[in-house]
Amino acid sequence: MEVITTRTLKERLAELQGQTVTLQGWIRNHRKQKNMGFIDFFDGMCFRNPQVVYDNNLKDFAAVQSFHIGSAIRVTGKVVPSYRDPETPEIQASEIVLEGDCPEDYPLQPKKHSLEYLREIAYLRPRTRLFQAVFRVRSVAAMAIHTYFQDRGYLYVHTPLITGNDAEGAGNTFTVTTLKPEDQGDPAKDFFGKPTSLAVTGQLEGETFAMAFSNIYTFGPTFRAENSNTKTHAAEFWMIEPEIAFCDLQQLMDIEEDFLKNIVKTVLEKCGDELAFLDKFTGGGLLDKLTALAGSTCARVTHEEAIAILRRAMENGYEFQFEPKFGEDTAKEHEKYLTEEYFHSPVFVYNWPKDIKAFYMYQNDDGKTVSAVDLLVPGAGELMGGSQRETRYELLTKRMDELGISKEDMYWYVNLRKFGGCTHSGFGMGFERLLIYLTGVDNIRDVIPYFRTPMNCDF
Amino acid sequence: MEVITTRTLKERLAELQGQTVTLQGWIRNHRKQKNMGFIDFFDGMCFRNPQVVYDNNLKDFAAVQSFHIGSAIRVTGKVVPSYRDPETPEIQASEIVLEGDCPEDYPLQPKKHSLEYLREIAYLRPRTRLFQAVFRVRSVAAMAIHTYFQDRGYLYVHTPLITGNDAEGAGNTFTVTTLKPEDQGDPAKDFFGKPTSLAVTGQLEGETFAMAFSNIYTFGPTFRAENSNTKTHAAEFWMIEPEIAFCDLQQLMDIEEDFLKNIVKTVLEKCGDELAFLDKFTGGGLLDKLTALAGSTCARVTHEEAIAILRRAMENGYEFQFEPKFGEDTAKEHEKYLTEEYFHSPVFVYNWPKDIKAFYMYQNDDGKTVSAVDLLVPGAGELMGGSQRETRYELLTKRMDELGISKEDMYWYVNLRKFGGCTHSGFGMGFERLLIYLTGVDNIRDVIPYFRTPMNCDF
Repeated sequence: MEVITTRTLKERLAELQGQTVTLQGWIRNHRKQKNMGFIDFFDGMCFRNPQVVYDNNLKDFAAVQSFHIGSAIRVTGKVVPSYRDPETPEIQASEIVLEGDCPEDYPLQPKKHSLEYLREIAYLRPRTRLFQAVFRVRSVAAMAIHTYFQDRGYLYVHTPLITGNDAEGAGNTFTVTTLKPEDQGDPAKDFFGKPTSLAVTGQLEGETFAMAFSNIYTFGPTFRAENSNTKTHAAEFWMIEPEIAFCDLQQLMDIEEDFLKNIVKTVLEKCGDELAFLDKFTGGGLLDKLTALAGSTCARVTHEEAIAILRRAMENGYEFQFEPKFGEDTAKEHEKYLTEEYFHSPVFVYNWPKDIKAFYMYQNDDGKTVSAVDLLVPGAGELMGGSQRETRYELLTKRMDELGISKEDMYWYVNLRKFGGCTHSGFGMGFERLLIYLTGVDNIRDVIPYFRTPMNCDF
Repeated sequence: MEVITTRTLKERLAELQGQTVTLQGWIRNHRKQKNMGFIDFFDGMCFRNPQVVYDNNLKDFAAVQSFHIGSAIRVTGKVVPSYRDPETPEIQASEIVLEGDCPEDYPLQPKKHSLEYLREIAYLRPRTRLFQAVFRVRSVAAMAIHTYFQDRGYLYVHTPLITGNDAEGAGNTFTVTTLKPEDQGDPAKDFFGKPTSLAVTGQLEGETFAMAFSNIYTFGPTFRAENSNTKTHAAEFWMIEPEIAFCDLQQLMDIEEDFLKNIVKTVLEKCGDELAFLDKFTGGGLLDKLTALAGSTCARVTHEEAIAILRRAMENGYEFQFEPKFGEDTAKEHEKYLTEEYFHSPVFVYNWPKDIKAFYMYQNDDGKTVSAVDLLVPGAGELMGGSQRETRYELLTKRMDELGISKEDMYWYVNLRKFGGCTHSGFGMGFERLLIYLTGVDNIRDVIPYFRTPMNCDF
């Protein structure tokens, strides 16, 4: 008897039809009739799960009827067509063996549990249909990202997580230490002989590799000790940070656009069943949104143009809570208007006011703006942030001085501008922000296996 | 004029022969004759780099002759065959433009620098041929690992890095905190409201996902605050930890063997040029070793059999520094003897003495051993460590009690044994250990972009 997974069953369905196979997995639901039983079976390898049907000819019929929801079982049976769904067969069981029992007070019951409740049992929620969909999309999207870059010759770089830099000047970092309480305040005694923290970006180290391999990307965890309890903030999340040599801001937008569409298309193609479920679960519109994005062209406007559009809307009676102002940051409602009301497409907003952006961004000739770009997408707001980097040694170090960032500590970063520097650009994308967009699930806590937020570090 | 990379040049060489192209990259070496010049050019996209040749017909000939090593340039020229190497053409330059200058005291000169020196300029070493090879192998191997698992339906899981568990009881963890000095000792005031540290493994969380998706893997950073300065220890490294439901110890070995051979074959196939260079650089034997591994069958012996083999060798006059003893761990010299002298192949050593292995391993009927397995490979020793997991609730919790590991804190882990548990197994592989094996470079500091070791946290 061939032991197979539901994935194999799907892939080789035509060939396996009418054959006897063995599957191993869990009982999601179990409905019993006097002389029959129906088991919603899953092994997590395929989103569409075959129903297992058995009748009272089954050896141990009575015992099998007592199998609880949540139990692990081994099922042997014949693959037969299902009248419910031509793509997912039924298994006519000839044997069902209990691998691992599950008590009746199992926390996951075949009913609708709230997302909040499921967070409390985060170690069990991957067994629900919702999280089977979400975490498969997560895995497939991660692979799509690697494939996109590797197919194009980008080098995957593991930038360090423990760092002695406070590079972005972002503050809000986690301290990493092995100091005992009595040695506090004596960094020389610490593991690295100096204060260290968890990295908030891998970009700066990424740039050092772009100056050697031209095209590189990072994909790793990132940490922010921000004390904010919103739907989109977590203290630990994953980021993708590509960096491209000999690439200016307009070329960067080309890459971002191609990248995003490619990832969306791949996930649409590989996770059709998961996305169809998520589309229903999240109230509809998800598949339409993703399909539209894959076929759309991203608009490109300067920050100044964007503000002008917003102000015109305001003058024409559109009501914003916050007034859009030249030289200032945009609010979520502004992003929403631009993508959903005005352009009906993703929008690159570029050339941002210098004072609200980071020190390493290319300073434009106007003296007021930098070559930064945010990609706004309908339904999710800012998805990527990038810039052409300041490659002129004098301008970079002057800006660092102004902002109190030590060019001596960061000698290796500024030296990139002295040792064969070139025009280069890069962007960052929070992986969970992409997943919120791809799954329609709107809370970051529900797209991460085990979320870390203020006062929450369970499992 | 088409702007291309050296990767495109290699892929489309036949078509581009005789055409004029533009390349962008850096000068690795520059040899000048009276009426000619030769530039060793690289852009990091392909290990084999074309030589750029120019003569005094070139516009700005004198200026170009003054271009320094390390400078970024844009080269336009005709693709012509090279007499040195049929696979790598030369570029007969019609224009060479300086993108970014480099001073003459550039720390990377075209001579042999010591590895120790290169570690001090780790932000520049990716530009050397050695590190172009090492980090390309690193990137390709990472992708091969993802591809192996994704092709087989494994779910990629990002297990948390910040954890409240001290799961393996391994000690030696880094504390993660936002406590100010004055709040030390008051974990309730810390970011998560309790003491947290950096994870030493993702296995336990991985198991929770294997109980939902059957086959899963992790690939992420891992941290050990071990104060050891050896060639194989780093405080921050990357690990791969697959976990497989409905899989026993023998099946696990099948998977480990197939996985390892597959990765080695993929890297041999995709990094031929890099490995040929590394083979020479490391004194020869690397390609033979890898090719042999890809075609070998791994031996399988119990720990008891392995000790018996070692003791027989000792009795026959083979000299070990440490006596091999039943019930005790093996030393590096023992591993070397088993793989290189006795089996001439990789060796799985399984059924290890219970007392030297972790609490979660399946306890064998003999009462003395657990279903653990180490994979030893010729030339590198232990490469993977795995086990069938203890799935019997009573035996697991009894063992945790014996070792003082709180089953209350770890309720979610032990509950996996109550809620539809099943036979399952998994292994861990340190990514850098694999890279040491694949590249022949013997120091972990030289296979990580920026290494973190005691008193070292630079860049």
